[in-house]
Amino acid sequence: MGKYRGSSKLLLQPKNTEEVSQILKYCNSRCLAVVPQGGNTGLVGGSVPVFDEVIINVGLMRNILSFDKVIVSGVLVCEAGCILENLISFLDDEGFIMPLDLGAKGSCQIGGNVSTNAGGLRLLRYGSLHGSVLGLEAVLANGTVLDMLGTLRKDNTGYDLKHLFIGSEGSLGIVTKVSILTPPKLSSVNIAFLACEDYTSCQKLLLEAKKKLGGILSAFEFLDSDAMSLVSSTTFLGTENHGQEVIKDKHGQDFTSIDLRALPLEFWYSYASGSIFMENLEAFLLHSVESGLVANGVLAQDINQASSFWHIREGLPEALMKAGAVYKYDLSLPLEKMYDLVEEMRVQIGPAAKVVAYGHLGDGNLHLNISAPAYDDNILAKIEPFVYEWTSKNRGSISAEHGLGLMKAAKIHYSKSPETVRLMIDFDYCVFELLPDTSCLDDNHSIICLCLSA
Amino acid sequence: MGKYRGSSKLLLQPKNTEEVSQILKYCNSRCLAVVPQGGNTGLVGGSVPVFDEVIINVGLMRNILSFDKVIVSGVLVCEAGCILENLISFLDDEGFIMPLDLGAKGSCQIGGNVSTNAGGLRLLRYGSLHGSVLGLEAVLANGTVLDMLGTLRKDNTGYDLKHLFIGSEGSLGIVTKVSILTPPKLSSVNIAFLACEDYTSCQKLLLEAKKKLGGILSAFEFLDSDAMSLVSSTTFLGTENHGQEVIKDKHGQDFTSIDLRALPLEFWYSYASGSIFMENLEAFLLHSVESGLVANGVLAQDINQASSFWHIREGLPEALMKAGAVYKYDLSLPLEKMYDLVEEMRVQIGPAAKVVAYGHLGDGNLHLNISAPAYDDNILAKIEPFVYEWTSKNRGSISAEHGLGLMKAAKIHYSKSPETVRLMIDFDYCVFELLPDTSCLDDNHSIICLCLSA
Repeated sequence: MGKYRGSSKLLLQPKNTEEVSQILKYCNSRCLAVVPQGGNTGLVGGSVPVFDEVIINVGLMRNILSFDKVIVSGVLVCEAGCILENLISFLDDEGFIMPLDLGAKGSCQIGGNVSTNAGGLRLLRYGSLHGSVLGLEAVLANGTVLDMLGTLRKDNTGYDLKHLFIGSEGSLGIVTKVSILTPPKLSSVNIAFLACEDYTSCQKLLLEAKKKLGGILSAFEFLDSDAMSLVSSTTFLGTENHGQEVIKDKHGQDFTSIDLRALPLEFWYSYASGSIFMENLEAFLLHSVESGLVANGVLAQDINQASSFWHIREGLPEALMKAGAVYKYDLSLPLEKMYDLVEEMRVQIGPAAKVVAYGHLGDGNLHLNISAPAYDDNILAKIEPFVYEWTSKNRGSISAEHGLGLMKAAKIHYSKSPETVRLMIDFDYCVFELLPDTSCLDDNHSIICLCLSA
Repeated sequence: MGKYRGSSKLLLQPKNTEEVSQILKYCNSRCLAVVPQGGNTGLVGGSVPVFDEVIINVGLMRNILSFDKVIVSGVLVCEAGCILENLISFLDDEGFIMPLDLGAKGSCQIGGNVSTNAGGLRLLRYGSLHGSVLGLEAVLANGTVLDMLGTLRKDNTGYDLKHLFIGSEGSLGIVTKVSILTPPKLSSVNIAFLACEDYTSCQKLLLEAKKKLGGILSAFEFLDSDAMSLVSSTTFLGTENHGQEVIKDKHGQDFTSIDLRALPLEFWYSYASGSIFMENLEAFLLHSVESGLVANGVLAQDINQASSFWHIREGLPEALMKAGAVYKYDLSLPLEKMYDLVEEMRVQIGPAAKVVAYGHLGDGNLHLNISAPAYDDNILAKIEPFVYEWTSKNRGSISAEHGLGLMKAAKIHYSKSPETVRLMIDFDYCVFELLPDTSCLDDNHSIICLCLSA
C-alpha cells in the first residue's frame, strides 16, 4: 500500500504454538510491544510496526494438520501461516474448496484471514468466516494458549469465544491454528460476465439470480464503467480470443458488436455458479437479456475464459496502484443507496481525482477508490470525513471486510454505538487481566495493539 | 419436559426495550435475581425459575419492525418475542424463508432462538445463526441497552460482540431485537424419505448428496429403526395414502413391499432440496438405489406428502414423551463415530430402557434419547457420566444445539478447556462490571443467572 511504513528492528518467526507462547510471555514480562503479522497484505496498516514493535510473523507455521474427507465433513485443520492459495490447491486435489477466495490469495495467510474476518469473492454463497470457522487456537498476550480448536459443526456449550478472535485483528491474541469447514468441489463451475445499463438493473438482476439460481450462485461481483476503463487495455474487451458470445437477443443479434462503453451508465459484473445445471443457467441468462435487465454478456466457454473474467475483476487493485496514488475505502452500505455515494463523491471531488467503484454487490460491499496522480491533502480533505459521515448516516459500515487497523481505529464510532465500544474496551481489559503483571498495559489495556493482517 | 419446575411468584411481560431496561435496572439495584423467558420450549431447564427469580417474559414484544425485500437483501428486523412460525408465515407471503426451522416453531420465539443459538433442520444448508444474524439489540443487567442492530452483511469494525450473545443463553443480557438475513424462497422444494441398510451407507449417501446436489440440499436428517418403530403407528408406514413410490430398482421392483424393519440395522432419513432441478434429483436418487446406498425410498409427490414426511421426523419428541420418561441428550460427534455411542449405550443400559436415536446427520448432531417407563436413578447412573465421558473422549460436544441450561451448566468442562472456561467467567464479569453496584453479584458474577429458552 505504501501508506504505512514499518520501523521494527526485530522480526521473530516462531515455528510452533509453543514458541509463540514463549515469545509473548517474554515480551509481556518485559513490557515489549509486539505486532502479529501474516502475509502482510492488509490494506489498513494493521500489520505494520509503525512504532518499534517486535514483529511476530507466523509464516513458518504452515503445516496442514489434518483433513477429514473420509466421511462427510471436509474439515481442514491447519496452522495459521498456511498461504490461502496453497490451501486452495491442497483442497482441489481432495475434491473440496475453500469457502473463501481473495485476490491476495497468493500471499495472504489463513491466520490473517481469520483474524481480519476476510470476506472476498465467495461470501455470498458460503457466508462469512463466523460461519465457516469451526474452531481455532489462539495465544493471549501473557502466553496462555486457548484451545478452541473444535472440529464440530454445532457446539452450544458456553460463550462461543472463537467469534471474538475472528475479526479482532490480533488485538486479543495471536491465532495459531484454524479449523475450517470446506464445501465439496462441485461438478462444474460456470462464470458469466454481464453488462447492465444502470445500477438499478444490477440490483434487480441480483434478486432474480438469487431467486432463480438459488444455491448455485456463488459470487456476484460488480465494477462500474470507470473501473472497466482502467482494465480495458487488458485481456477482455475488443479481443476475439476471449468471451465467445453465447447469449443472443430474440432477434439473434450478436451483442459483442455493441460498444457498451458508450452507454450512459455502464456496469460490468460477473457471477460464478457451480452446478451441473448448465441449461438452467443459460435459460436464466437468456430471460435476463430478453427482459432487458442484461444489455450484453458472455458466458465462459472454458476454464481459461473463466480465469480471464476473474482476472479482470482481481486485476483492479493492481491497475489502481499503477495509475498513481489511491485512497481506498471498503464500505458496507444498503444496496439501494450504494451507488449514490459513488455519484456524490464524484461531485464532491471534482476533476482532481477519479472515482473508481467495484466490489461485492451480492454482499452490499463497495470498494470505493479515489485515484489521483499523487497523495494530496486537499484531495483527502474532500474525501474524509465526508465518506465516513455519509456511511454512518446511512447506517453502513466504514469497514466491511478490511478491518480497522491503524487507518480507522479512531473512527470506530462512525459504525458502532458508544455502549458497544465501551464493552469492547472492557473485553480487551478482560483478556489482559489474565496477565500476571498488568502494570505495563497502556490506556487501551492492550499490549498487542495492532492487527494481524491477512 | 417436566424435569425442572418453576417457583417464581412474579411474571413480568414488558412491551418494549425501554420497559426491559427499566425492569432490569430496578431488579439490579435491589439485588433481585431474574430469569429471561421466551417460548419456554427449551430442553435443559434454562428458562425455568428454579429458585424464586422474577420471570421476564418477552412474549408481548412481537412486532415485525421492518423487512427489506425491495432490492436484494431479505433482511428481517423484529422484536424478540416473535414466534418462529409467525415469522415463517410472514416471510412466505413475501417470497422468503427463515434460515432456521425447528419442531418447536409453533411456540418458540426468535429471541430465544438467538439466545440459545438454535440449530434445527436447515442448518446444513443455511448455516448457524452466527452466520444469519446480522445484528441484535440486547439489554444488560444494569439496564444498559446495547444497539448492535445492524442490517449489513459485512461489518469489520471492532469485536463482533453480537456473537457473544448468540448462544449465551441469556446470561450476558436479554436479547430484545433481532436482525436476520433470510434467503429467497426457491421455486420448488422436494423431499425424499429414504432407507439405508446401515449407518455407513447413510454417511456415504450424505457425502454423495453434498457433492452431486450441491447447494440444493437443505436438510439431511436421520432416525434409526427404534425411532421409526415409535412413530410407525402414525401416517407413513403401511398406508397407501402417503409415500407414493417413484423410485424403483433396475428390475422395476416396488420397494414399498419390502419390510424394512426386518433389516439388521435400519435407517430412515429424509432430505429436502429446493430448486427447479427435479430431473437431477431423480437421477441422483435412482443412481443411489442402483449403487446400493439406498435400499428403499419415496419422493414426495405433493406438499401434503412432504408435510407428512416432516411430520414423522418432527413427531418424534412428542412420541417419546407419550412413551413415558425420557432422558434427552443432544450431542455433536464426529460422523464416523456417532452411531457407535448409540450401540454402546444399548449394551450399557440393557433391557431396562430403550435407546432411541435421531438427529441432524448433515450437521453431526445426534439426539440420543433413553426412554423408560419412569424416571429411575439406577437408569440415570448407567447413562451419566458415561455419555458425557464418551463424548468428551471423542472430542464431541455435550450440547450441540440445546445449550447448557441448568442441566449441563456444571458439565461444561467435558467440552471446553479450563482456559476457555476461565475466560468465559472473566467475560461474564466484564459485562457485569458495568453495574453501578456490583456488591450484589454472586460468585458467578451474574445476576441474570439462567438462560433465555427458545
